[in-house]
Formats: sequence, structure tokens, C-alpha cells
Amino acid sequence: MRLSQFHLHTTKETPSDAELTSHRLMLRAGMIRKLASGLYIWSPLGLRVLRKVERIVREEMENAGAVELQIPTIQPRELWEATGRWEKFGPQLLKIKDRKEQEFCYSPTAEEALTDFARQELSSYKQLPVNFFQIQTKFRDEIRPRFGVMRAREFLMKDAYSFHLHDEDLVREYENMKAAYSRIFTRLGLDFRMVQADSGAIGGDASQEFHVIADSGEDALVFSTGSDYAANMEAAVAAEPPARAAAGEAMRKLETPTQKTCEEVAALLGLALQRTVKSVALMAGETFVLALVRGDHEVNEIKLAKVPGLSDHRFATEAEISEYLGCVPGFLGPVGPAKAIRVVADPEVAALADFVVGANEAGFHLAGVNWGRDLPEPEIADIRNVQAGDRARDGGELKIARGIEVGHVFQLGRQYAKALNATVLDENGKAAVLSMGCYGIGISRIVAAAIEQNHDEVGIVWPEAMAPWQAVVCVINPKGDAAVSAAAAELLESLRAGGLDAALDDRGLRPGAMFADMELIGIPHRVVVSERGLAAGTFEYRSRSASEAESLDRDSLMRKLLG
Amino acid sequence: MRLSQFHLHTTKETPSDAELTSHRLMLRAGMIRKLASGLYIWSPLGLRVLRKVERIVREEMENAGAVELQIPTIQPRELWEATGRWEKFGPQLLKIKDRKEQEFCYSPTAEEALTDFARQELSSYKQLPVNFFQIQTKFRDEIRPRFGVMRAREFLMKDAYSFHLHDEDLVREYENMKAAYSRIFTRLGLDFRMVQADSGAIGGDASQEFHVIADSGEDALVFSTGSDYAANMEAAVAAEPPARAAAGEAMRKLETPTQKTCEEVAALLGLALQRTVKSVALMAGETFVLALVRGDHEVNEIKLAKVPGLSDHRFATEAEISEYLGCVPGFLGPVGPAKAIRVVADPEVAALADFVVGANEAGFHLAGVNWGRDLPEPEIADIRNVQAGDRARDGGELKIARGIEVGHVFQLGRQYAKALNATVLDENGKAAVLSMGCYGIGISRIVAAAIEQNHDEVGIVWPEAMAPWQAVVCVINPKGDAAVSAAAAELLESLRAGGLDAALDDRGLRPGAMFADMELIGIPHRVVVSERGLAAGTFEYRSRSASEAESLDRDSLMRKLLG
Repeated sequence: MRLSQFHLHTTKETPSDAELTSHRLMLRAGMIRKLASGLYIWSPLGLRVLRKVERIVREEMENAGAVELQIPTIQPRELWEATGRWEKFGPQLLKIKDRKEQEFCYSPTAEEALTDFARQELSSYKQLPVNFFQIQTKFRDEIRPRFGVMRAREFLMKDAYSFHLHDEDLVREYENMKAAYSRIFTRLGLDFRMVQADSGAIGGDASQEFHVIADSGEDALVFSTGSDYAANMEAAVAAEPPARAAAGEAMRKLETPTQKTCEEVAALLGLALQRTVKSVALMAGETFVLALVRGDHEVNEIKLAKVPGLSDHRFATEAEISEYLGCVPGFLGPVGPAKAIRVVADPEVAALADFVVGANEAGFHLAGVNWGRDLPEPEIADIRNVQAGDRARDGGELKIARGIEVGHVFQLGRQYAKALNATVLDENGKAAVLSMGCYGIGISRIVAAAIEQNHDEVGIVWPEAMAPWQAVVCVINPKGDAAVSAAAAELLESLRAGGLDAALDDRGLRPGAMFADMELIGIPHRVVVSERGLAAGTFEYRSRSASEAESLDRDSLMRKLLG
Repeated sequence: MRLSQFHLHTTKETPSDAELTSHRLMLRAGMIRKLASGLYIWSPLGLRVLRKVERIVREEMENAGAVELQIPTIQPRELWEATGRWEKFGPQLLKIKDRKEQEFCYSPTAEEALTDFARQELSSYKQLPVNFFQIQTKFRDEIRPRFGVMRAREFLMKDAYSFHLHDEDLVREYENMKAAYSRIFTRLGLDFRMVQADSGAIGGDASQEFHVIADSGEDALVFSTGSDYAANMEAAVAAEPPARAAAGEAMRKLETPTQKTCEEVAALLGLALQRTVKSVALMAGETFVLALVRGDHEVNEIKLAKVPGLSDHRFATEAEISEYLGCVPGFLGPVGPAKAIRVVADPEVAALADFVVGANEAGFHLAGVNWGRDLPEPEIADIRNVQAGDRARDGGELKIARGIEVGHVFQLGRQYAKALNATVLDENGKAAVLSMGCYGIGISRIVAAAIEQNHDEVGIVWPEAMAPWQAVVCVINPKGDAAVSAAAAELLESLRAGGLDAALDDRGLRPGAMFADMELIGIPHRVVVSERGLAAGTFEYRSRSASEAESLDRDSLMRKLLG
């Protein structure tokens, strides 16, 4: 590849709407161009990277025994109705009417379509297990598309769906896929972690996420120092708190005229924040619920929604709070409500003695409160975010890192196959509902995530497997001495013959501009061919991650690049 | 590849809605499965073929200097409004509203998006010429999707867009693309023809189509025996007719009480059909138009629409016919209309003397009619389909064959760049509107077209380049003698090492069922490994196109397959 024949178009300006490093660098490198909100054109340079990721994903999926197919992006409403996801998926599902007013959606994932395919194709247990995958454009109508291709509306995804007769077959394939995913992210050269996850809108029994570690990551990942325990914030659990101490104080009402937050109340009373309790007022259907976490803790919405009866909760209005607690926000608590309410306490709250809550009276809090004595024992559920420093269940300490989700594996079980009546005949000739796993990788998101993890102040620092080219041979003054161009072309051919994906920069830019481009677009190996170097029998070599260039003769250069 | 690890699923039944051979065979072979009307899942087998076509198209586009990128499938209304195509494209354009009620379409082609990219990326003539291509899913909301992937709504297309400063650069790239297309279809192993075409809804100055020749083809292609002239029916022209003879008869009114068609009138009068004239009544805006073709000719709608003023014509209603001609259909003609009308005559009609037309009086025709004497000289325009046997302009004879359109190249000129204001600075530093070419190939349609051209009564007969595998090694009783399986596996490896895309059929089917599958899915080379053959030191070989199998020793077999 000669760059004079390629369309490389870098820019110096940083667009103002690009908040994230990877978004800025992809735009500056000319890898992507915006077509509309959340819709990006992949330029020739960007597409080279995208295709490298795609190829590694495809190879490892095939090595793991999965078989590729292709599902239409446009899928009929009826299938999505049958599983209940036409409504349940929410407004991220892009709904479409065709010229005959029939309804379709742009596939954000393809469980329904694959289950439909499976029920047409699979009739006997002898055809199992089977794992179908596709690498296909997906669409999710994000309410606020941003961060470039990190959270684009149209994106490229690898999605795989396995079908099984027995649950243990599903578990085996699930483990097989986890191993394949680890090979994929290892080959891509990324620092990644697998964490336990909540299975969210896809549903199912077990699920794990793969994250690229990066300080800018949207997700908090929780690790234990005591084992290889790792989970995302929605799934992470801490150790059970120690048993509750005996009550030591009498309950008393204290004036807290302007103190509405736990921090303010703790400061006023000279108490540890850990002794205070935050009361979050919710409505779940017709029921008023107070969710309680310690003053130093935060409620986790996903955990809260998993509490029986709370899947569709919302915050209570001031009118509802007044009706049930007879009070204004800022002074709420579970003691002596005006009407019957449901109280859900985090285990850390349930373990407290002599704690502080709002008095349900403006300007007052209660201290010395104790369960069983001053109010009934609460319903207990883990509803909080764990925090760095929490004790882990394995006895270690929990640490928190930031990650970008790039893969997700699920044991779906039989819910989709049941809804769509996908069965096969089992060993005894009886119809059995298929068990199913699904396995996704965000191909286009990996590109952005890799940049978040691998960049410096002048540009991208690609892992070798993802770089648009592993090496670029830069020609100084290509229209000058013909021997220089000839030597560069010969070097290019030797590198390519040695298996390196290499290109020739024969655009004729000044050296400074050419080198800046190569640094910006993140080329791992840069070789400069110049008249002066040629006279000395040397090439200037610089690794993207090294601070200095070095002068190498041809043999040393070839050894360095081809090993 | 071992077929026991692959998902191969052939069926015997022919679905009743599959009218076309390729549709039936693709379903029977299990290459595709229907998800909804005009939407097909490509199974693992089908996808292998699709990817082979895709790879050849990509390689030849790259060899021709084009650079790949990727455009979103979902594109904003504003871009399509700017070129007028939001309305002009018609109901085939799938229009979509997102959650914010903003309008988009699913790209059926990407001139607008590419021109938008070009105006962001290209600023100087020094960046030209450049040709961007993508291989991407497209959508056209066909009113009656049918014929499987031949006319699916969602399909895979390669579309390329070149940008130029000068028209001669466009012409040069257009020729370059034509040559690349010829290499592509040659490599695919297809019998194809390039024909002159009308540029249709895409617009522009010059265009040619590439057709796969097949008796079942939807399009009539016109060839001349006198040169390499070839055109589709919309673009095909015949030689000018000989000069008009002098009038020889007086005009007379004849009773034709029930004779309404030219055939019936000619039979009644004992005249050649070529002496009669068909009058087609149209409205073009406020103007009533009679379009005249010879009784033995057919009007071509596309040619008619290209006559100035007729781009938006429709058939006249009976009320309009009565108003302008004072007559009912069946007896219409250009002589003595009730009100002023426009008459457009095909050259063959304009060249007639002593001809027959309707008398504008129910039950009567006029014979011996002559231009200039009985009615004014007409406006002349080529508005008919040519016919097999017509004289060609090169002096040869026109022949007609059937074809399936699989590629189309256009010289678009500056219309899109003008509408979207895509300019670059020219050699003199002045802003110049870009000139543009576009070049499409229907990747998924090629698969169906190849089958229409290459099949027999038992299945598909793939050209080698498109076959899912070039060769399959069939193992008889793979669970029997281990030496047979070992020999088959060794043979497979040797074939693959020799560069052949080969698979092993180790599914353990009975020989008859296994061979029927291989014939149905069109494998070019079948090799059978059996205990008996092994004992005799031979393999049974059969070419898909041969009627008999032959017994070959290993050396002969390898020579035959690897050359």
C-alpha cells in the first residue's frame, strides 16, 4: 500500500463536541466522520482497524467451533411481540413501518431471529450443540448518542447464539465462549478483565462481561484482593456486615433545622456518617416504599429493581411523601409513618444499632434508633453500590477500576425458545425446548476502547494487532533521488514478504508533518529512508512507544521487525 | 472443514411460493431461510458463497485503485432533501423516524452520503482522483418482493463513488471501472455481457449495465450481429427506417365494427400488421398526447418518459379520450381530433405511407392515411422496443437475449456535488464543483443469478470460484474402518495444502443421500474414500459437470484437482 494512493486525511483541530479522548483522536486521525447524530462514516483508515478487529473475532469464533451466518438487520414485529421485547426493549428499539404499514425494527440484537432460524433448521438433538454467529450492523436509538463510536446508534457487533438440549451443554459452551473471548482480547493486545454481570434486558440465568480497562471507562468494576473475584457495580457484592450490636441509647428527637443531608446531620451531631441512614422514597405500583442505605452509601438502581415487587418503581412525588410520611423531603425516616409503608433496608443498615434517621417532621431527626424496639425489623436486600475498601466475601478487600464493556456472555436458558416454541426431538423422541446461550462483542466499540487505553499526548498508540499498518516506511523527498524511493519500495516488499502489514508513505510531506501523522494514527513501527541514511547504509527506526529513534543497518532492522 | 461440525441442512420439498429456479435451489440447499417478506437469513452455507463473491469484488476494486470505507445504513433526511431524492426515489425508499421524531432513510444507495463525505474530506485537486467503495447492506422497499434474494428488500451491494475535477478524468475512471467489472465477472466464472443502459433514477450522463446471461432473466438485452453493440431494452436503438414512400392511396373510412386491436383490423382488411398504427392516449400535465407505434411494435415506457414534456405522463382516462378525440378506446387515431392534441410518432410510424389508424368514431378505421396530406407531419421520437430481427445501426441484425442485471456504472457528472456544494480548489486556486461517477454491484443478487445460469435437474452447478467448497472428500461409513477416515483426512489436508478450498463430509450419511447433497449444493469436485477403493489404491472422482464418476489413483487425482 502506497499512502499516495490511499486516502489519509488528518486534521489538527479538535472538534468542540468531542469530549472523549478516543473520539477526538479518531476524528483528528480521520478514522471516522460524522454523518448525523450517532451515525459515523468509517473512513478508509478507520475501516482498516475495524476489519482487523473483525478478522480476529471471526477467526477465534471459528476456532471455537461457531459457524457464521447472516441475519437481516430489519426484523418483523411479530417475532419481537412473541417474546414481549417489542415493548420491553423500550425506545432504544428503532421501530419502522414499511410501505404496506407493516411494522419492523432495526435489530439491536438477534435472539428472536436466531430462535426463529433454529426452529426452522433444528429438529433433532443430533444437530446439537450448535453455535451460530454473525458480524453485522446493529442499531440502538440512544437518547443521547455521544463519545463517537463508543456509544453510536449504528454500530458493528458480533453476536452469537448457541442451542442445546441440556443445561450442562449450555454451561460447557458458555465456558468455551469465555475462553474464546479471552483469546480474542489477548490477541487484540488489550488489557481486559472478565467480570460478573447482571443480565439486564437480555434476561437469563448467568452472565459475564468483558471490559477493556481504561481510566475513562463508563463502568466501575469491582475486584477483590482475596481471589480472582471480579464483578461490575450492578452485580458486585461485599461481605455480610458483622452482627448488629445491642441497643445502647434511647431514641431521642433532635433539632436539625436546616440539615437535610446525612453529611450535614452527621456534622451537626458530631457523629460518624456511617451511623446515619439515607431514606429514599419510592412508589412501586400502589405501594409506598422507603429504601434505606447508610449515609455513606449509594443506592444501586439495578439492584433495587431486582427486589421482588420493585421492578417498576419510581421516585415518589412530594405529594405522595406528604401523604404517607406527613413530612417534606430532607427529614424522612422509617419510624412512625402516617400511613402503612414498605421498608427495604440494605444489610449494612439492618446491622446498625443506635442510628440516625429523619423524624418525619420538618427540622428534626431521630438519634439512638434501634430495630425491633423503635420500629419493626425491616425487609433486607442488597441495594447499594459497593465501595473501594469494603470487605469482600472472600476475606480480601474490594478495589474499584474503570472499564469499557466490549463483550458480554449470557446463559439465556429456555425463555426465548419457549416463547417461540423452538423444540427438537430428544434422545427419547420427545419434543424438548431448546436451551440457549448468547455471546456479544462490540466490534466498533473495541476500536474506541483500545484508544482510550492506548494513547499519549500526540496520538494513538495501537497494539500491533489493531494498527492500520504495523509498519510504515517513510520516504524523505520521494521526488528527489530515485535511489531513495527504490530502496524504500524494496524495503516495503521485504517487510511484506516477511509477513508484516506495512505501507509506504510516499506522499512527499515534509518530515515533521509525515512523522506527526504517523504518531497521530498510531503506527507501531516507523522506518525512515533518506538520502543521508542510504549513503551511510542505515535506516532510522522508531517504535511508537519509544522516546528516541535509532539508526539501524538493514539486517538489524529486519531482525527487529520480523523477529 | 468437517461437515459434521458445520451446519448443512438440505431439504427435499420445494416451497410453493418459490417460482424461480435459483430461489427453489437456494431454499432446498439450505443457503437461505425466509425471515419475512423480502428478508432472508443467509445460512452458513449461503454465507460461504456470498463471502466468496464479496472477496473477489473487493480484491478487484482494490486492484483497480479504489479505497474501501463504510457508510451508515441509516442516513438523515436533510441530505436526501438537498438532492431532491427524498421524494423522487419514491416508496422504495424506506423512511424512518427516530425517538426524537427526526427523519431518516435506510440507504438504498449512497450518493448523498458519499458526496457529504467528499465535501468534508476533499479540499484540493491534489487529492483527486479518488474512488471510494463500500460493501454494505442496502434496503429497497420493493412493492412485491419475490424470487428470493434476486429481488429481496434487504440485500448486499458494493457501491463505489469516484470524484474528479475534469470530465475526462471521470471518463478515464469510468473505463477503469468497466475493466474492473469485466475482471470481476470473469473471475466469478459467469457468462456476462456489458450493455448500454438508461441511467434511470440515479441520473447522469452515461451508464452501462452488466448482466449475467440466463434464460430466466428479467431483462431483455439487445445485441447486434454487426458489431459488439449491446444495450438493454430501454437504451437499444434500431437503424433508421428507409425514407417514406409517396402516398399511393386515397384516405377512406372502413367499417371495423368489432375490430379494436391492430391485429384484428389487419386481419379484417387483409393487410400486413406493419401497415397499421397503434394509438396510445396519454395525459402529460394538461396536454393530451397520442403516442403512435406500428401495430407490430410495443411502446417502451422509459423511452416515452424521456421525450421532452412526457417525464410525468400517465394513461388518459376514458373521459379525457372522449373529450379530446370524441371517441371510445379501440378506434382512436391522430386524424381530426375533437380538440388540439400533441402527436408523438415513432420513426417507424413517421416513415409509413398509406397506413391505417382508428377513425375516432366507434366501429370505424381510416386506411390510406398519409402524413402531410391527411394530417400534419408528426413530432418524431424513438418510443418503441426494438425487436429481434430489426436492422441494427451498424448494418447487422438485432438479436435479443435474457439477462439478470448484476452491475451498473454511471457517469453522474456534477448534479450531486452541485446540490450539496461539494467543491475543491482547482489548479488555479478556484473552487470547482466535483464531477462524480458511481459504480454498483449486487453482491447477493450475483449468487442467485449464477444459479439461474448454472444448474441442472438435480441442483446447482457452481463455477469453481463461487462454490461453497471447490472439493468435498466424502467418507463412506466414517465410524467403520479407521483407516478410511484417516486416509480421507490426509487427502483433505493435501488438497488444502495445494490451495484448494476443500471440506470433508464425515456426517455418516448413506452414500446416496451424501452424493445427492453434494450435487444439490453444487460442489465442483467430489472425491469418495471407501474401504473398497482404499484396498484397490483408488479414489472415486466425479466432476459436478460430468455424467460419470472415474476411479483414480492418488497421483492422478492430485494432478486433476491441483493441476
